[in-house]
Amino acid sequence: MKTNNQRPTEAQCKATLNSVADALYVIGGKWKLRISVALRDGNQRFNGLQRLVTEISARVLSNELKELELNGFVRRNVFTGTPVSIEYELTDYSDTLSDVLRSLSEWGAMHKEKIKQGLHDMQAVEN
Amino acid sequence: MKTNNQRPTEAQCKATLNSVADALYVIGGKWKLRISVALRDGNQRFNGLQRLVTEISARVLSNELKELELNGFVRRNVFTGTPVSIEYELTDYSDTLSDVLRSLSEWGAMHKEKIKQGLHDMQAVEN
Repeated sequence: MKTNNQRPTEAQCKATLNSVADALYVIGGKWKLRISVALRDGNQRFNGLQRLVTEISARVLSNELKELELNGFVRRNVFTGTPVSIEYELTDYSDTLSDVLRSLSEWGAMHKEKIKQGLHDMQAVEN
Repeated sequence: MKTNNQRPTEAQCKATLNSVADALYVIGGKWKLRISVALRDGNQRFNGLQRLVTEISARVLSNELKELELNGFVRRNVFTGTPVSIEYELTDYSDTLSDVLRSLSEWGAMHKEKIKQGLHDMQAVEN
């Protein structure tokens, strides 16, 4: 049972609801944050990205990269030559996602550990 | 251009990729986090939730609630009587999501503000 004194007010709740919805609208979905993480190790070409973000199809990766570029998270660098080489690079703006990525990554690791341990008594979670 | 000295190693990057993927597998998608936020203000019946989480259809809300219950985030309380009353309640385990929700909510509010200000020069972002 949740205690009442920690409850946010209805107004706080609605503001958080809107902000979370705004965030998910831009960076939600299965792939965008994963692609961002994959690029943190360094710039990548399309094929390299597809190898890192397992299970993503070429069509979906292509669309997601376009949206990430449109929203200012990713830059597409074209190097002319033979053959032409294209690299994807994170922008400085993508750094604003670091807290989101850190908290998601920590939560994912914690949750997996709990599942592994079979600790499904959710009352006994200590962190 | 991103500076190299802040780059995570390839191994760190892959571990983060996996953890983020694990997290998104459980709490990803358009609705689950929004439903969790809507319940933070207090227990809700189905219709109340549908009013708070705007644009969600009854069918989708029903499915999402089942998955949230299965993963231990939400409890479904049935009060016998005439008519039977059903309320949805957050479990203590859902508190583990607070850091994820805080960071997403802060990021969503910041991003919206940037869009509003028309500051699309992503190089000049100060936070």
